[in-house]
Amino acid sequence: MQGFSEELVKFSTCDIADGLVNLYSIADGGYFANLTQYSGKSSTPVVGRAYTVLFASADDPRPAVNYIDEIPRGSFVVIALSKDLQTMYAPYVKVTQACYGGLMSTRAKYQGAVGSVIFGRVRDVDEHRALEYPVFSYGLGACAPKMALKPVAINVPLEVSCIDGTDRIIQPADYIVGDEHGIVRIPGDIDVEKLLEYMKASVEADELVAQDIKAGVPAKQAQQERRKVLKRFF
Amino acid sequence: MQGFSEELVKFSTCDIADGLVNLYSIADGGYFANLTQYSGKSSTPVVGRAYTVLFASADDPRPAVNYIDEIPRGSFVVIALSKDLQTMYAPYVKVTQACYGGLMSTRAKYQGAVGSVIFGRVRDVDEHRALEYPVFSYGLGACAPKMALKPVAINVPLEVSCIDGTDRIIQPADYIVGDEHGIVRIPGDIDVEKLLEYMKASVEADELVAQDIKAGVPAKQAQQERRKVLKRFF
Amino acid sequence: MQGFSEELVKFSTCDIADGLVNLYSIADGGYFANLTQYSGKSSTPVVGRAYTVLFASADDPRPAVNYIDEIPRGSFVVIALSKDLQTMYAPYVKVTQACYGGLMSTRAKYQGAVGSVIFGRVRDVDEHRALEYPVFSYGLGACAPKMALKPVAINVPLEVSCIDGTDRIIQPADYIVGDEHGIVRIPGDIDVEKLLEYMKASVEADELVAQDIKAGVPAKQAQQERRKVLKRFF
Repeated sequence: MQGFSEELVKFSTCDIADGLVNLYSIADGGYFANLTQYSGKSSTPVVGRAYTVLFASADDPRPAVNYIDEIPRGSFVVIALSKDLQTMYAPYVKVTQACYGGLMSTRAKYQGAVGSVIFGRVRDVDEHRALEYPVFSYGLGACAPKMALKPVAINVPLEVSCIDGTDRIIQPADYIVGDEHGIVRIPGDIDVEKLLEYMKASVEADELVAQDIKAGVPAKQAQQERRKVLKRFF
Repeated sequence: MQGFSEELVKFSTCDIADGLVNLYSIADGGYFANLTQYSGKSSTPVVGRAYTVLFASADDPRPAVNYIDEIPRGSFVVIALSKDLQTMYAPYVKVTQACYGGLMSTRAKYQGAVGSVIFGRVRDVDEHRALEYPVFSYGLGACAPKMALKPVAINVPLEVSCIDGTDRIIQPADYIVGDEHGIVRIPGDIDVEKLLEYMKASVEADELVAQDIKAGVPAKQAQQERRKVLKRFF
Repeated sequence: MQGFSEELVKFSTCDIADGLVNLYSIADGGYFANLTQYSGKSSTPVVGRAYTVLFASADDPRPAVNYIDEIPRGSFVVIALSKDLQTMYAPYVKVTQACYGGLMSTRAKYQGAVGSVIFGRVRDVDEHRALEYPVFSYGLGACAPKMALKPVAINVPLEVSCIDGTDRIIQPADYIVGDEHGIVRIPGDIDVEKLLEYMKASVEADELVAQDIKAGVPAKQAQQERRKVLKRFF
């Protein structure tokens, strides 16, 4: 199933969200908001399978785990804090400590990870940039997590608090796609081949819509005409 | 009255806020905070007349309206969500869906709009940039609004929740000026000619203040001396 | 004691936070979060001694003070609002007015200040950039403070509300170091010579860790080996 990464990289997070909302009625399009990409920017999105890591308070009874040394090749490292440390409003986490830094990206890149997304703070921004390794996060920190946070579980479902009061889930091995807008998650029960086929047709249709609009056709009319080809998917 | 745009474009949002607070005792200077300009950046601000669009929940009883195809030339498209979908704290809206995207900017530009400000999320950032069309918003999204939001009214007053607990209003046809700081609104009952005259004198005075300070004159003294010329406005 | 600035400038905010958390068990590493550096960016951090300024509501009974004309050489100007005007969540302050602008940076630079950090809003971003003078803040504003805020005290301890419910203090003359991550404060009772010695050893050790990781040594093993040299500090 790893093969889909090569195909998915041709589509933006917006294209994928379009596919998920239109084909599968996923209202939020699988999108996770309020992330900034601090490093590894390029003209194509970052695509990989979620390798999930849960951080909790430093005084959590669970022992700290070593998550960084065994990341599988092709992983998108996804780090979230336990729910009690999340907030609905910015800065989205109750700690100012970073839970991810330059040495983590150095090892993740060595292991063949494609990028890291941290629903929390990161530090050492210059190091991630020098590595040309994509790192997304809610914000920055300067202090190491030592006295505040520790990693307690790997390959577990992660819950991310959302402004609408719901929690959004990321499961291990979900496809994760990231670009300037943030990340989208493709749930594991989605037919990715069908999604790819839909997105290809949808992007082609919308390129024609854009051409029509530039030629003076009203947007609504152009969308109705050009998107007729998508009816075969429903 | 459209002619004022050519004059207003010579002044930053800071200059205009100065004029509104000093000449008209508008305490907030007409300023709307927490916006980011994602595209169409240039050395001069964006100036136009507000073309207002209200979005509400997808389940709102009102029918969706087509707002994009009839934008008047010279408009600054202003989009806000209904009050129940706004928050005082970041991310400032209760939805993660974008309510504005690349095809909207394509049509808005064709219609001769000068820019769009969305008190909500936008997507397709690369497309707005490729169009060199100015788009301001609270943040980004990837998913289309389809299942969450719809446009329900055009040319209505818009209310924007502010951190001080008040709502700030934008009326249709208000002059809107935008730059990196965000946007300012010039209320319709302001004498724009007088405002322009004041701003010209004020900017000239403050350039002399800056020169004085660089020559060693204390800031307070320089301001008192150089701003004496502004007394004729009061 | 001014001499430490030349040494401290060799270390990032992350290095300093590492020193403070590891040597002195300061859990947050002296870090102040959620700041953006809008101007004066360079490859080295900004280092100076805190010159503190407290702003309060315009209707505060205390008279306004002139803080800008007597800034001591080498100062890091630190401006905070009174606690009643701060919020734990973004935008972090209850006002949309800026309390700092271009003329302030012009004078601060003339006085030999190294930079300014405003726990609030700033305006005139282009002017700070043209001056190549470092300015950090929570966000931007366009309107002058006139009708909302005024400076009421100089060289007083400043309290900054933090997302964890605590207040963080900055004392006059504290060393302040700023870079893209925000700022860190070195409390006055810290042995800066010892801190510098630790940071030098720690940065050297971590450069070797990075080399090891790139050569295939697991991160945890490399850290344990290379950081053994730091044991002499404990």
